[in-house]
Amino acid sequence: MTPAQYFRAVVAYDGTDYHGFQIQAGAPTIQGELERVMAGLTGEEVRVVPAGRTDAGVHAWGQVIAFRAKWRHNVPSLQRALNALLPPEIVVRELALAEPDFHPRFSAHSREYRYRILNQTWPSPLTSRYTCHVATPLNVAAMAEAGNALVGVHDFAAFGQAPQGDNTVRQVYRAQWQEQGLELIFEIEANAFLRRMVRSLVGTLLLVGSGRLDVAGFKDVLKSGERGRAGPPAPPQGLCLVRVNY
Amino acid sequence: MTPAQYFRAVVAYDGTDYHGFQIQAGAPTIQGELERVMAGLTGEEVRVVPAGRTDAGVHAWGQVIAFRAKWRHNVPSLQRALNALLPPEIVVRELALAEPDFHPRFSAHSREYRYRILNQTWPSPLTSRYTCHVATPLNVAAMAEAGNALVGVHDFAAFGQAPQGDNTVRQVYRAQWQEQGLELIFEIEANAFLRRMVRSLVGTLLLVGSGRLDVAGFKDVLKSGERGRAGPPAPPQGLCLVRVNY
Repeated sequence: MTPAQYFRAVVAYDGTDYHGFQIQAGAPTIQGELERVMAGLTGEEVRVVPAGRTDAGVHAWGQVIAFRAKWRHNVPSLQRALNALLPPEIVVRELALAEPDFHPRFSAHSREYRYRILNQTWPSPLTSRYTCHVATPLNVAAMAEAGNALVGVHDFAAFGQAPQGDNTVRQVYRAQWQEQGLELIFEIEANAFLRRMVRSLVGTLLLVGSGRLDVAGFKDVLKSGERGRAGPPAPPQGLCLVRVNY
Repeated sequence: MTPAQYFRAVVAYDGTDYHGFQIQAGAPTIQGELERVMAGLTGEEVRVVPAGRTDAGVHAWGQVIAFRAKWRHNVPSLQRALNALLPPEIVVRELALAEPDFHPRFSAHSREYRYRILNQTWPSPLTSRYTCHVATPLNVAAMAEAGNALVGVHDFAAFGQAPQGDNTVRQVYRAQWQEQGLELIFEIEANAFLRRMVRSLVGTLLLVGSGRLDVAGFKDVLKSGERGRAGPPAPPQGLCLVRVNY
């Protein structure tokens, strides 16, 4: 009998047509596709554990997952089989055997997200799946200054919810805006993120960029810890989980 | 009665789900969508003339079109109306009144195309609509050297067909490869292009990059003028009409 082995993988996906990572009945999800294909390959139910559950419409370049599966051939052949059977929107970029104590969520020491904004009059059909379009000119300097205030250890209760039993304090290592061609790109790295945190941060930073909130006001929102004072979450398609660091 | 005015526009589109620019019965095309929306807005048939007809699946950032239409309001309001009614895959980036002697094809003095290749083991779900995936490592230096041989006035009969009554001599101003992140990008500018020319050039340059044809052999193909000696056309999704210069 083939014993079950413990695998870790780096997975990229286009979340446009998926109802988020987490499996749910009656809707296509990333986890659902991965588990369906793995069950087909191994003949047994497989449970996939991710570093973080991305929301509906959010993309990933470097989602990390772990799973136990019985596979009688070598690891590269499992990666080839997975990529041959998965829909083209999901690609297993890396696959390896995992140490027994590896956990995609608890072993991670930081996560990196990227949020892309197209800041010009008209949307672009060539990037609309991966960017949020903002027609009014944004004040990037003010957004960068407000973003700087996020670095460090803060209670981010104003920007998201913690999983049950957890607090809302997180450490942000890096939060910066850069202009790249026609886009404004927000990159943020933290030890962990609250649910909806990056989209809420970007939504509130967009209030700063459009002059509806000044930098001092942004800092007040952070300090207040009041969810009602943050801006509405920015739309999902601009967001991408870029990398998880261990 | 509103007199017809003559307009020029710069149009971007995602060609993935369209059967090319040119209108045809029973299949979605860029021209078909533009003319349908314009007819709806003006109450009369409108005929759209492009700088060049892109193939099925090919994208554009800077396609240029001209059309005559009766519109009683100002030009910006026509642009807004078009973008409100066109499918999200087609955006009118610029719109202006055209000089009476303007012709999108005959007035153009050069066209710029870009071809994007993702050269890594696995495809990327985040760029697969806009890149051609090549898994085997490519020799970029050899491809660049072969590309250089294209600059100048040449008979490109080996790489495409001329419209009826036209010859196959074209002048290439620029043909270069650059590495950008995970991608190899080919940019080419010429006074005009033959049908399928860029995709045939890239397909043949891929033979050079993969070692199946050397640079001298590539130059021989060009010199031969024999269509059968070029490589198969590279797939459409990597190609984008970036700009037309007047």
